[in-house]
Amino acid sequence: MKDIKTIEFKEDTLYLIDQRKLPATCEYFQCKNYRDVDFAIADMVVRGAPAIGAAAAYGVVLAAKEFLKEDREQFFKKLDEALQVLNESRPTAVNLMWAINRMRKVIDKNKDLPLEAIYEKIKEEADTIYKEDVETNKRIAQYGNELIKDGDRILTHCNTGALATVQYGTALGVIREAHYSGKNIFVYADETRPRLQGAKLTAWELMQEGIPFKLISDSAAATLIRDGKVDLIIVGADRIASNGDTANKIGTFMLSVVAKAYNVPFYIAAPTSTIDYDIKSGEEIVIEERSSEEITHINGIRIAPEGVEVYNPAFDVTPYENITGLITEKGVFPPNKLPLP
Amino acid sequence: MKDIKTIEFKEDTLYLIDQRKLPATCEYFQCKNYRDVDFAIADMVVRGAPAIGAAAAYGVVLAAKEFLKEDREQFFKKLDEALQVLNESRPTAVNLMWAINRMRKVIDKNKDLPLEAIYEKIKEEADTIYKEDVETNKRIAQYGNELIKDGDRILTHCNTGALATVQYGTALGVIREAHYSGKNIFVYADETRPRLQGAKLTAWELMQEGIPFKLISDSAAATLIRDGKVDLIIVGADRIASNGDTANKIGTFMLSVVAKAYNVPFYIAAPTSTIDYDIKSGEEIVIEERSSEEITHINGIRIAPEGVEVYNPAFDVTPYENITGLITEKGVFPPNKLPLP
Repeated sequence: MKDIKTIEFKEDTLYLIDQRKLPATCEYFQCKNYRDVDFAIADMVVRGAPAIGAAAAYGVVLAAKEFLKEDREQFFKKLDEALQVLNESRPTAVNLMWAINRMRKVIDKNKDLPLEAIYEKIKEEADTIYKEDVETNKRIAQYGNELIKDGDRILTHCNTGALATVQYGTALGVIREAHYSGKNIFVYADETRPRLQGAKLTAWELMQEGIPFKLISDSAAATLIRDGKVDLIIVGADRIASNGDTANKIGTFMLSVVAKAYNVPFYIAAPTSTIDYDIKSGEEIVIEERSSEEITHINGIRIAPEGVEVYNPAFDVTPYENITGLITEKGVFPPNKLPLP
Repeated sequence: MKDIKTIEFKEDTLYLIDQRKLPATCEYFQCKNYRDVDFAIADMVVRGAPAIGAAAAYGVVLAAKEFLKEDREQFFKKLDEALQVLNESRPTAVNLMWAINRMRKVIDKNKDLPLEAIYEKIKEEADTIYKEDVETNKRIAQYGNELIKDGDRILTHCNTGALATVQYGTALGVIREAHYSGKNIFVYADETRPRLQGAKLTAWELMQEGIPFKLISDSAAATLIRDGKVDLIIVGADRIASNGDTANKIGTFMLSVVAKAYNVPFYIAAPTSTIDYDIKSGEEIVIEERSSEEITHINGIRIAPEGVEVYNPAFDVTPYENITGLITEKGVFPPNKLPLP
């Protein structure tokens, strides 16, 4: 297996594979402070709900380091501002808020320690989130692999691989696991407009691993599903409401409707940190609307006429009724019977 | 209304708006002989089922002109070869075969006339197809307009406008008509991967006409449909089987499944020349698979990793059960009760 290091923290620098530049070049983007991390998340240098969570945690580490030179009052004030900035770098993925929340709890719990010691605790917590993510993905992969039969043709959307997490991946982690456990599988990868994470990132990961696949336009999936050429669909998640409604990359909902119409199993693979127990249903999920240039331009080249108006939601919400099961690190759950927090 | 001349024949030359270059530049591609026309259809200089039919008819005119210098035997032999080449320039749109068939009948009927006179008959028939297409589109537009209410939000896919026909358009012709009849309508235009005819051509036409619209990624349509933001969907067709099953641009079927699931009316607008009475159902329709570069490259720039395998069908088949009605120049028909030939 190729060891893709999406995120690495060393010598007070957060190194992120610059996913805006894949597959043409594999370069590392260096974050020297929390503002760099905020930019990296907002501009999608790093993307994928679990990866965003881990990156944000190290953003807090960088902020704490930076503010060690301040007095105690200023340290906490500025650190709090940094937490807020990072928390708002993107609106939909709940793993971001979840990670920031964990960091905040550590700060609160240790607020009476010397600043250096607080910094150490913060660093420890980020490392824990990082390590847990790898472990979590492995467990998701193992539970998910139990659902896959030899010869299965699996459809996936967007990128949910090593590049979307600290390592291994969620939905693509399940696919990796099935492949490495010796099952003869075949993948259909949606290109995933507008950002083309499927064409750029998933295709890159699958080629690195030597997993057989074909790249398709998003709308070509429907005929494959109807014609019995897809045995199951596995995608990731950016936020899951208490009732199982799931926000994920735009296009997921469309797939789920076709899967339901033609009785093809439709799974979500995600860590339980993606579950937002504070909201009852998908209606409460804020859907990020991104720049119209994602639609009007491709790699900087204008496609659509000047002045065109665009509606560009980054995510959509799949209702729990369309979901066969949620694959988590705690096992596979029916979408309306999620594990307790 | 803007008078967009997609196709024009003058001084032994077929002028086609080069749709590969829109919206950046509006240039005319000149066809001096039938091989130029064959290339123009295959490479999608001209596209859209009715436009392909009319262009192919003028391809026959150019071939006849070229072979006038031959003896009678060679004239008919070479003309027959040209008809065959043009007939196979693209496989899915039946209007192409329909137009070639009309031209063949004229040749057969007049085969005893002097060659010059045969040429004149051929030219007349091409001009008739050309004129009929404009008339047909106007009638489609009028029948279709009766289905549209003031304030309707209409979703469309691919390009079915003036650029897909001789003039005015089929599905987009209906939209034009509704707009010019004073109805306050709003359009959602799917970008239509992989060739982006929505982003490049439909957006261009709608802007020329001043019809309010937003451009969306294909997969963003589903949420709009579910959330009641689309009152009806109108698309074109490349071939309609006797039972009403309809081949159209890839992505049409996906839309139809979502429309059916959420009870949104789904109309096909097409001339009756798009109906292939020789086939019983959509299963008999040959679906063109196009180059993988349409997925891996955009405007010549590589998007996906080198060596990636692609599945790139240009069309899909929507079963008649998903279609609310077929808007033709003879009226609006339930898809399973098409007009007689």
